[in-house]
Amino acid sequence: MDIDLIRRLSIPGESKVLLCVLDGLGGLPGPRGRTELEEAHPRHLDRLAEEGTVGQTIPVGYGITPGSGPGHLALFGYDPLVYEVGRGVLEATGIDFALEGDDLAARGNFCTVDADGLIVDRRAGRVATEITAEICAELESSVSLPGVRVFVRPVREHRFVLVLRGEGLSDALTETDPQREGVRPLRAEPKVFEASRTAELVNQFVADAQRVLSKRDQANGMTLRGWAKRPDLPQMPELWKLRAAAVAVYPMYRGLARLVGMDVLDAGANMESQIEALRRHWHDYDFFFLHYKYTDSAGEDGDFARKQQAIRDFDACVPALQALGPDVIVVTGDHSTPAMMASHSWHPVPFLLRGSNVRIDAANRFNEVECARGGLGTFPAKEALPLAFAHAGRMTKYGA
Amino acid sequence: MDIDLIRRLSIPGESKVLLCVLDGLGGLPGPRGRTELEEAHPRHLDRLAEEGTVGQTIPVGYGITPGSGPGHLALFGYDPLVYEVGRGVLEATGIDFALEGDDLAARGNFCTVDADGLIVDRRAGRVATEITAEICAELESSVSLPGVRVFVRPVREHRFVLVLRGEGLSDALTETDPQREGVRPLRAEPKVFEASRTAELVNQFVADAQRVLSKRDQANGMTLRGWAKRPDLPQMPELWKLRAAAVAVYPMYRGLARLVGMDVLDAGANMESQIEALRRHWHDYDFFFLHYKYTDSAGEDGDFARKQQAIRDFDACVPALQALGPDVIVVTGDHSTPAMMASHSWHPVPFLLRGSNVRIDAANRFNEVECARGGLGTFPAKEALPLAFAHAGRMTKYGA
Repeated sequence: MDIDLIRRLSIPGESKVLLCVLDGLGGLPGPRGRTELEEAHPRHLDRLAEEGTVGQTIPVGYGITPGSGPGHLALFGYDPLVYEVGRGVLEATGIDFALEGDDLAARGNFCTVDADGLIVDRRAGRVATEITAEICAELESSVSLPGVRVFVRPVREHRFVLVLRGEGLSDALTETDPQREGVRPLRAEPKVFEASRTAELVNQFVADAQRVLSKRDQANGMTLRGWAKRPDLPQMPELWKLRAAAVAVYPMYRGLARLVGMDVLDAGANMESQIEALRRHWHDYDFFFLHYKYTDSAGEDGDFARKQQAIRDFDACVPALQALGPDVIVVTGDHSTPAMMASHSWHPVPFLLRGSNVRIDAANRFNEVECARGGLGTFPAKEALPLAFAHAGRMTKYGA
Repeated sequence: MDIDLIRRLSIPGESKVLLCVLDGLGGLPGPRGRTELEEAHPRHLDRLAEEGTVGQTIPVGYGITPGSGPGHLALFGYDPLVYEVGRGVLEATGIDFALEGDDLAARGNFCTVDADGLIVDRRAGRVATEITAEICAELESSVSLPGVRVFVRPVREHRFVLVLRGEGLSDALTETDPQREGVRPLRAEPKVFEASRTAELVNQFVADAQRVLSKRDQANGMTLRGWAKRPDLPQMPELWKLRAAAVAVYPMYRGLARLVGMDVLDAGANMESQIEALRRHWHDYDFFFLHYKYTDSAGEDGDFARKQQAIRDFDACVPALQALGPDVIVVTGDHSTPAMMASHSWHPVPFLLRGSNVRIDAANRFNEVECARGGLGTFPAKEALPLAFAHAGRMTKYGA
């Protein structure tokens, strides 16, 4: 649904919607010809499918394999082809860095350069995260730019995030990462005239940082890419007239939730603490986004059995989630991550919705085959929330 | 399909298409776990489903509950998010008032005001329709505006329609209905500069009408809202190269048909006279829109059994409709009105099409569950006519 139409049709209410995202949920037939979901045979989810209705979502478009950003934005109701979250911003949200409105973020790599400044190892031997943390701290404390506050924060191994906070910074810059070895890192160049000052500031930062890094043998250079500013996303509370909260263990998903205006609850490190957080805040919010990572991690590792087990582990928590009393519960994924591919994929994603006024369909299992024939049909993931809020009685009629 | 593409691909022909709209057809499982259609088990419609193909439509968008206007516009091939029919226009069509191109219409309420002009009853005690008719006649004959013809027509109880006919009137006006009691009706204000003269005319009408109304104890004030002009809809005969006729008992649906360029036939007050009208005019038209209201009325009343019976009553007429010899017959609804909700809803709508060159699917029943798994899939209601006319051999190839 179009954002302006959401604004026009959404109405406040007392009902509660719980969106459970099993990351990378969709799968492919494994060694025995059945998908992870089919093999897992999750009995509580199967029951929800029987009592509710199912379908399958297209996260971004047919044949398009989504990253985590677009996959989640779609589930939050935004067309991921309209609202793009740049790499730098995702990287910053991924370490729980609270970006402000005008911040400019980039993903950085520490690399190793030779005496002539040529890159000899783009990942600096995948230097230990602790070393990267030390280098970042030193750079953040020693490099300063006029009128701009500089943040340099470690991610993992050789990766870090650079954030520049100041007035009038532009993300229309070229990347300094030449994407190959044997050459020097590039200078940041402005893509538009208005970005000239930003490019100068970036190049000055790199030059100053280089002086600090030069004393090192390894990780003695850096590359920067994915220049991005926080996208100007209409905020969920205003769009839907509600209070929204996220319960996620991994920072990336907390960050994405923050970008769309959700409050991020202290959710601990596992499903038990996530459910406890939901229980504690059940009366404070109308909408809850629960993120579950382990289906995706197992899929990415190509571990069919572990993904199947991750589904079962989530399934075991369903009674506790239902006990909270959501008016509408949705269980789906942000994309498919078939273990057989060991990567994200373009396949549609199983979707189930249980709530009042649901039109029960023929499905009594929650898996790819049943969902493909479900009552909701095959639909864009960005329609997930409009469907959920309709069932929650939070959408008014269109036209007389 | 896009309107320009319709214009480009449609071709004339000898075939005849009959679109049967069972208002509010879609339902939800009732007390026995089956929907109205499932319980009704309509044997002629089931046979059509077996001989034809089925699917389900999304009238306006996922999660969107349509009013009658958008629900029908979609079935007539127009994107209801692009072509909006305002409240005033719908109200006028609802009493068979033939709006001309530049007419400005509003929905009016007679209300009761106290000595200070404050509203004490927004609906004037739901004054009898006959009284409203008398007041309207008096206002229409006694209030005049410079260069504008004034129509004041009763609807039902306290409701009436105001139509101003003249040059250059604008619908960019604020409503005079404050939507609460204890305050005065508001003045109409122009929303754009060009609407200033219209606002003056409206306020003058209200002031003059007030003098007439003041002698009454009840229904001695008025409020106006839903300012609207007839939408500029491309006309069906030109778009599709055909002659189109409507056979509808209720004025609202005759009015909607008129807005898209159908001829409105004298259809009497029931299915027998509607079928008789079809028979009488069968050779005069290529496309017929048959409207059947009782599924919706029963649904709106929350009367599951009556809706079920209304489906059976329609079903009994199917042989007579088929006897007319349509090349393509479509049976669907403009939206769902589940008796369990006693209101319109956002749920998809069962759709069936029987005609030559139809690709028969697995469905042999006409109900929500079968339609959700039908050969036509889940599709926007605005694609109903393109599908029907394709099966009628009235669409040419796209591209070489």
